[in-house]
Order: sequence, then structure tokens, then C-alpha cells
Amino acid sequence: MATINDNYLKLKAGYLFPEISRRVNVFAEAHQDAKIIRLGIGDVTEPLPEACRTAMITAVEDMGIRDKFKGYGPEQGYAWLREKIAQHDFQSRGCEVDASEIFISDGSKCDNGNILDIFGNNNTIAVTDPVYPVYVDTNVMAGHTGDANDRGEYSGLVYMPITAENNFTAAIPTQKVDLIYLCFPNNPTGATATKEHLQAWVDYARSHGSIIFFDAAYEAFITDPSLPHSIYEIDGARDCAIEFRSFSKNAGFTGTRCALTVVPKTLKAKAADGTDVELWKLWNRRQSTKFNGVSYVVQRGAEAVYSEAGQSQIKALVSFYMENAKIIRAELTAAGLQVYGGVNAPYVWVKTPNNLSSWDFFDKLLHACNVVGTPGSGFGAAGEGYFRISAFNSRENVVEAMKRITDTFKV
Amino acid sequence: MATINDNYLKLKAGYLFPEISRRVNVFAEAHQDAKIIRLGIGDVTEPLPEACRTAMITAVEDMGIRDKFKGYGPEQGYAWLREKIAQHDFQSRGCEVDASEIFISDGSKCDNGNILDIFGNNNTIAVTDPVYPVYVDTNVMAGHTGDANDRGEYSGLVYMPITAENNFTAAIPTQKVDLIYLCFPNNPTGATATKEHLQAWVDYARSHGSIIFFDAAYEAFITDPSLPHSIYEIDGARDCAIEFRSFSKNAGFTGTRCALTVVPKTLKAKAADGTDVELWKLWNRRQSTKFNGVSYVVQRGAEAVYSEAGQSQIKALVSFYMENAKIIRAELTAAGLQVYGGVNAPYVWVKTPNNLSSWDFFDKLLHACNVVGTPGSGFGAAGEGYFRISAFNSRENVVEAMKRITDTFKV
Repeated sequence: MATINDNYLKLKAGYLFPEISRRVNVFAEAHQDAKIIRLGIGDVTEPLPEACRTAMITAVEDMGIRDKFKGYGPEQGYAWLREKIAQHDFQSRGCEVDASEIFISDGSKCDNGNILDIFGNNNTIAVTDPVYPVYVDTNVMAGHTGDANDRGEYSGLVYMPITAENNFTAAIPTQKVDLIYLCFPNNPTGATATKEHLQAWVDYARSHGSIIFFDAAYEAFITDPSLPHSIYEIDGARDCAIEFRSFSKNAGFTGTRCALTVVPKTLKAKAADGTDVELWKLWNRRQSTKFNGVSYVVQRGAEAVYSEAGQSQIKALVSFYMENAKIIRAELTAAGLQVYGGVNAPYVWVKTPNNLSSWDFFDKLLHACNVVGTPGSGFGAAGEGYFRISAFNSRENVVEAMKRITDTFKV
Repeated sequence: MATINDNYLKLKAGYLFPEISRRVNVFAEAHQDAKIIRLGIGDVTEPLPEACRTAMITAVEDMGIRDKFKGYGPEQGYAWLREKIAQHDFQSRGCEVDASEIFISDGSKCDNGNILDIFGNNNTIAVTDPVYPVYVDTNVMAGHTGDANDRGEYSGLVYMPITAENNFTAAIPTQKVDLIYLCFPNNPTGATATKEHLQAWVDYARSHGSIIFFDAAYEAFITDPSLPHSIYEIDGARDCAIEFRSFSKNAGFTGTRCALTVVPKTLKAKAADGTDVELWKLWNRRQSTKFNGVSYVVQRGAEAVYSEAGQSQIKALVSFYMENAKIIRAELTAAGLQVYGGVNAPYVWVKTPNNLSSWDFFDKLLHACNVVGTPGSGFGAAGEGYFRISAFNSRENVVEAMKRITDTFKV
């Protein structure tokens, strides 16, 4: 009799975003005239940069010419893409990252989940609270947790609260943790980490033999030049950190699909017999066996991000969304709401007014303003009383959404 | 101290195809004038069908128009693609498969490995021998096996030998097995399954509560109209089978990346407490949490396979490769070699002459003929003494390779 992975039964009924969709659909059906503006899911809205499109069309044409046709590519990604990433995103910032340490993938969400394949089941895992739900849910599925309590916290995980009280910066744990998820600029709070803060994490990880999973999906939105874009800007990070990046948000690839993971060759973890094993070798084997590389056409599109035109186009795209964030911050503040983030990140993190719960505020915004955001409690128990507003939308929609919110909430 | 997944240490040093690459590279370096012809890895060589390219270019252009731009798509794939697949590949053959049961992915290799995520660790797993190595290696990685013996067989797996003696058709097990991997038309042997044979498997699975993983990646190469293309042509299969398909081989998508997995909503397996759980729900949750859908551009390319032009172009592509297979069969037979497969599959399975080992024959073909094939023993212990030749290459290369082999081996 075939059996299932019972850990799946521990998962809460709905992943956050499907539950949002459900509520929005119910509302939309009952109010067919409502002009709903979606500032919930962190999905981009503006066209793919022209440089990327041009490169992708050439790549499709290549596929029609026998001598240029591409069958299976390297599971790790094409060298021409990996080299440009290494040079531009890392080496130019003083990070010692080699092209061979970069693995191209079809998405950061996939990599965030799949990375657990190469680790043991006896690691103690630390996540911030609130947190990107994929970090938690993939650990639940892998059997690294017990059941969830009423607050949605799974036993066996170490939750590190990040709230206004600690400036959305987790304290370095006093207990031993083995795998640590960090995301900066942070989803959902929009908070950032200084070099000093990351240095403290790297020092902790090195002294405890821990591995940091550093999610830098939003690094392009950093405006403050003193802030690090990569964990590898920190001394010692090559010995303790894996970094995840994506073309989704900087170049609008959420529907085009391309991301990357950096696994330094210097990174080691322990086998059961106490020997050190190179994680690069394990991840390389994992990707070779369970993945077949990203579409050639898509990789050519990603490569074009590094052309002169591509760079200028993605800068314009990021600036456009960041101007949205600035408007959101200013308008909500003027409406008397307390806001965080949105300066070095495309997310504005709002304290719900009048002690409303996150879902009550969600329902209120949806019904009174026809605006969709994301309830903070969906990201974890400590997100209760907060609300995420995304800057990914047209200027017109952002301005209109803010007007509706201001009209509703202004005292 | 972070620990690794020790199961990875059980894997044999090289996945088959990297080892082939290594030997070919060493030879090529030492013999720079050699004109090597590759009939090893099952990678297509001919251009992507025009219908697919045209659709992909339109899709890239869509991405440049704000109102047509696509961000995150459904993790399960776009409805317009799933519906065409359901109608064309299944319903038209009398299979009761609904579009909602089709999950679009970036590759069958990925799905073959990832499907284990939703199953328990206490299942007894049956594979044929020889077998596509990914089925075995992903079970090793997931901790479903013990160590490998000298023959490369992992303890804990049930191996079902398929050799000339049983016409490359595994006997239905006498013991209880829970998860069964079947691949028809078969990789590597090119063997096929009749409806009667598959009915026996379905009957076994239903009476034992087992799940069949049916890999139909090569169904397009079936020429015999009496052979089933899908397991769902068999009565009762919806209660016991998951089917994997791919656009890689029929439409030349190995570098473009699109595949699909069918999980019927009627399919159930047991939770630890003995209750039945719908596998569709688990796979849907797995894909929603650990995957973000296939590139919009690629899905549009796959959709074009179902257009009138696309259908005619993929038929031509398949016929082209099958003519190659016919030539390979005829020439090798004329050279006195014993050949199997190659009639309903793009693979010809050759008995090595003079009791050569598979790798000795590999080296001999490489050195004497500069032709690369795949050693049968790389697919499993019972593949020893066999050799796989792929029909994926240009006509000119196939003819030239066969001439070289004939010149070398003809008595």
C-alpha cells in the first residue's frame, strides 16, 4: 500500500496567496463593478526590458537554425551567463565569487525549497517572524518540524521575531541553530541589514558551523550606498553562506523565470561520521540529477540584463517601482498610518490602525477601498497587526489606491 | 553544526552521462582531428518546429506590451495549454483526463525526481534493470535505499531485470511493491508494452494499493497502432497511475524545457493513520510551494505543438528520427550485431559482440569508429553486455556512423 509524506498534513490549509485570491474572488463576484487594485502579491506589472526581449527573439530564431540549435544545456546554466553574473553582481562589488559557483535556475522559490535536499534532517532551523512562507512550508514538508500551534508556529523551528520594537532586525540567537534564513532587503517588512549586522551573523555562523541561506531577491532596490547587496561583501561569508538571487523583481522576470543560487566551493557541512563535505558538490549533484537547466531562450534574456541597454532599462524599472514606494509611504503617513520599509525595498510595511487584526484590515481595505494588500499575520505570528503593501503596479493604480485609502482613513 | 543529507554519499561517483562526457573529452583532446559522432545522450539535434518558434516570438512581444505582459502565471500551468493537452493527448484517445489534472513543468527529469516529495519514506520501490538512472538516484537521495553493492544495485530497491530472455518486459512482482516505475516506449531498451501487459500492471497495482509512475516521454515514437500511448488507456489506471510526458523528444524541446505530469483526482495513497489522501492535493500543494510555473514564452511554444502546423511539423520531426532508427537497425543487423528496439522508440539496444563489457564496447566504438553511444551497464547491472544507440542526429551523421561501425565490425 503506497503511503504519503505525512508531513504535508501538518501544513495549514491555505498558502497565504491562494487565500488572498479566494477572498478577492468572492468579493469581486459580489461586486462586479468594483475596480480592484492589487498591491498584494509581489508581482511586477511593467513590460519586460527591451534588451531582454530582443535577445530572446534572437535566441528563438537560433533555435530554428540547425547549427545554432540548442538541445540540453548545462544543468548549472550556460557559462556566458554565469560569467556575466559573477563579474557584474559579485566581483565588481569586491565579492570573491567564481562563475562555477553560480547555479542558474528557474526561480528563487524553487531554489529556496530545493536547497533543503542536500541537508540533513537533524538541523535546527531559524527563521524570522514574519517570514517569506516558503522557507517555513518547505521545512514542514521535509519533516523538519512538528505540528503548528494556534498561532501557526511549528514546533521544532526557532522563530526570531522582527517587529517595530527591534527595528525589524532579529537578535543573534543565544541558542545553537544550524540553518538560518535571512532575507535582505526583507520580504515582507522592507527592512535592511547593515554590514555590521550581517558581520555579526557571519561571525555567529562561523563559530557555530551554521549555514546562512541569504535571500537577496530584492537587492536591486537598495538605494542607500552603505548597505551591502550580497552576503559575500562580508568577511568570512564564503565559509558559511549560500545566496539566492532572482531576475524576477529587478528585470521583471516573474513570468519569464530565471534565478540563481551561489554555493561557494569553500562551503562545508558535516556528514554523520563527522567529516566535512563540500556543499558545492552536493548541490551540483542535486541539480544534475533533478534539474535540466533553464530554457536557452530565457538564459539569453537574462544575459541581456548585463548589456549596457539592459542595465539602463532595469535601472529605470527599479526607479519606477521605488517612486511608487515613495508615494505609498508619503500618502499613508499623511493619512496617519505608521509605515516602515519602502526606502530600500519595494514593500511598505504598515502598522494596522486601531489595533485591527491583519486580516480585518485586509477585509476593510478590500471592502472600503477595493485595494488588495497582504495581511502581516500571513507571514507569521509576529506579523499580526501589520500589513504589506507592494509597490509593484502602475503609477496610476498606486496613486488611485492611495487616494482611496487616504479618503477612508484620514482623521 | 549544519549536517548534510548523508544519502548523497551513497551515490556512485558519476552520473552516467557526465562519465561519458569525461571519456569523450579525454579522447577528443588526444585526437583533435577525430570527427566524433554522438549517438549517446538522447538529445535532439534538429531545429525547433517553426510553429513553436513563431508562437514564442509573439509571446516575447506580448511581454513588451503592458496589457499583455505576464507576471507570475499559475504554478500548474496556463489553462489554455492544459486544456489542449487534455483534449489532444488524452481525451482524443479515450482517456478520462481533465485539464485540471495536468501539471505543466520545466522537465520530466525534474518531475520524476520531485514526485517522491509527496510520498512516504516507507514505500517499497520497484524499478526495471536496466533503468533510466534518475529513478534510482532520486530514491537514493531521498533515503529510500541502503548502499550499493559491487554491481551498483542499491539495497532496499526491488530490481526487475529486463533482458532479451524476457523480451525486455518485466514480470509482475510476486512480492508486494508500493511504487513502480514503468517507462514505455522504454528508455534505454526501446521495448514497448502492449495493452495486456499494462493491464496486468494496473490490476496488480489496484489489488496491492500501489502507485505506478508511468514515464511516457517517448510515446510520440510509437508506430504500431495497437500499442497504448498513455497508461490511462488502460481500465482502472486512474486509480493507480501518475503519468509523465515531455515536449523534449516529440517537439525538440530539450533546450526549451517543457513537460507535464498527470495526477488524476481519483488517485489516493495512505496516511500513517490509514486514511486515504488524494495525491492531486499533495502534488498541487508541492508545486504551489516549491515551483513558480513555466516561462510564459515557453508555454506558448508548447501550445503551438497542438496547432495544425505544429502537429504536422512534429510528425515530420518524429518521422525523421525514426528513419534514422530504421537505418541504425538495418546497418547494425547487417554488420552481424543483435539489435532490439528502434521500431517504436528512438533508441536501438544492441547486444555487445564477443561478450565485450558495455564500457569496453563504448571505448572500442569511441576509439575505432569515433562514435559515442551509451553503455548498457550505465543503466543497471542487467544492462551489462548491452549498448544504447540513439537515433537523434542528422541523417548524414547517422549514415556515416553506421558506415564506420559496419567497416569495423562486419565479419
